[in-house]
Amino acid sequence: MTQKLVPVGVSARHIHLSEEHVAILFGEGYELTEAKALSQPGQYAANETVAVIGPKSSFPKVRILGPVRKATQLEVSRTDAFSIGVNPPVRESGDISGSTGITLKGPAGEVTIEEGVIVAARHIHFHTSDAEKWGIADKQKLKVRFGGDRGVVFEEVIARVSPDFALDMHIDTDEANAAGIKNGDTAEIVG
Amino acid sequence: MTQKLVPVGVSARHIHLSEEHVAILFGEGYELTEAKALSQPGQYAANETVAVIGPKSSFPKVRILGPVRKATQLEVSRTDAFSIGVNPPVRESGDISGSTGITLKGPAGEVTIEEGVIVAARHIHFHTSDAEKWGIADKQKLKVRFGGDRGVVFEEVIARVSPDFALDMHIDTDEANAAGIKNGDTAEIVG
Repeated sequence: MTQKLVPVGVSARHIHLSEEHVAILFGEGYELTEAKALSQPGQYAANETVAVIGPKSSFPKVRILGPVRKATQLEVSRTDAFSIGVNPPVRESGDISGSTGITLKGPAGEVTIEEGVIVAARHIHFHTSDAEKWGIADKQKLKVRFGGDRGVVFEEVIARVSPDFALDMHIDTDEANAAGIKNGDTAEIVG
Repeated sequence: MTQKLVPVGVSARHIHLSEEHVAILFGEGYELTEAKALSQPGQYAANETVAVIGPKSSFPKVRILGPVRKATQLEVSRTDAFSIGVNPPVRESGDISGSTGITLKGPAGEVTIEEGVIVAARHIHFHTSDAEKWGIADKQKLKVRFGGDRGVVFEEVIARVSPDFALDMHIDTDEANAAGIKNGDTAEIVG
């Protein structure tokens, strides 16, 4: 049987902003500028950053990922969350209802969001053709193994299938560090 | 078949000091004082802390675990290591030959060690009677599962068997945070 190998991208803490919040933080009509394209088509790391002000401490420069989204969403690791003093839920991207609030500060202003802080659930983006080839359905929970001296099998890895996606597994820095994974390493779907 | 359940202890960064280094950092003849007993018989968290000075940044207060040992050993997570700017190997406790150096600072003095910084390999302490009951040998590599929304199977978990040990799995903060594990949670040996 063919091995189902996927490249792994390690997500450091980052934020997606709504158009409204870009206007508050950077000024009316401001447009984010692209620093670097990401693995998913159309997504980019912006040159801009915002300060994230938690109850316990702050991150002065959190990278913004563009383009703008419908709702602002801050993705942190559990380690980050302890550090700034918040306790966000593990959620899929976009599923922010009832999640944690936070204060954001940009060069033009400040905004406190009532929800939008999450620890991102580990997931794999599949192009529809990859998913069909391997018999994987959207939303399916997978098991993914990475070997080595900190070998780990990640369970509850959510499959996300779309013709707009490129094959890539996304984990956060806690998961990468726990397993000795570096950005661009390869993991295997084992169940 | 009986489940092999083990309590999990989450180790934050900490340091073990040699008698020589206690003398340099705290003064000749100084003795560490116990703040809290740990799960392993005779081991304790001391009231004392030291500053750890890395090339990139520092940790002003790293907890000392007593009693003193033959060699000084600083155990950090990979996240900690990135933060202070060092790249220590994943090692079993005590196996520090050729590991990473660091500078330590106490109220009475400062010392730079050439080796002793490690990322601790995940392991389980077994009392000899637990190991016999479950057919587990010293140094055996085990697989240990923790379920939930960040479910993980940790591979390469080293069994350490001794009549002086109490049953306890030790992982670091990266591993705990990646798997959603809190101190005192229970994991299962699955292989």
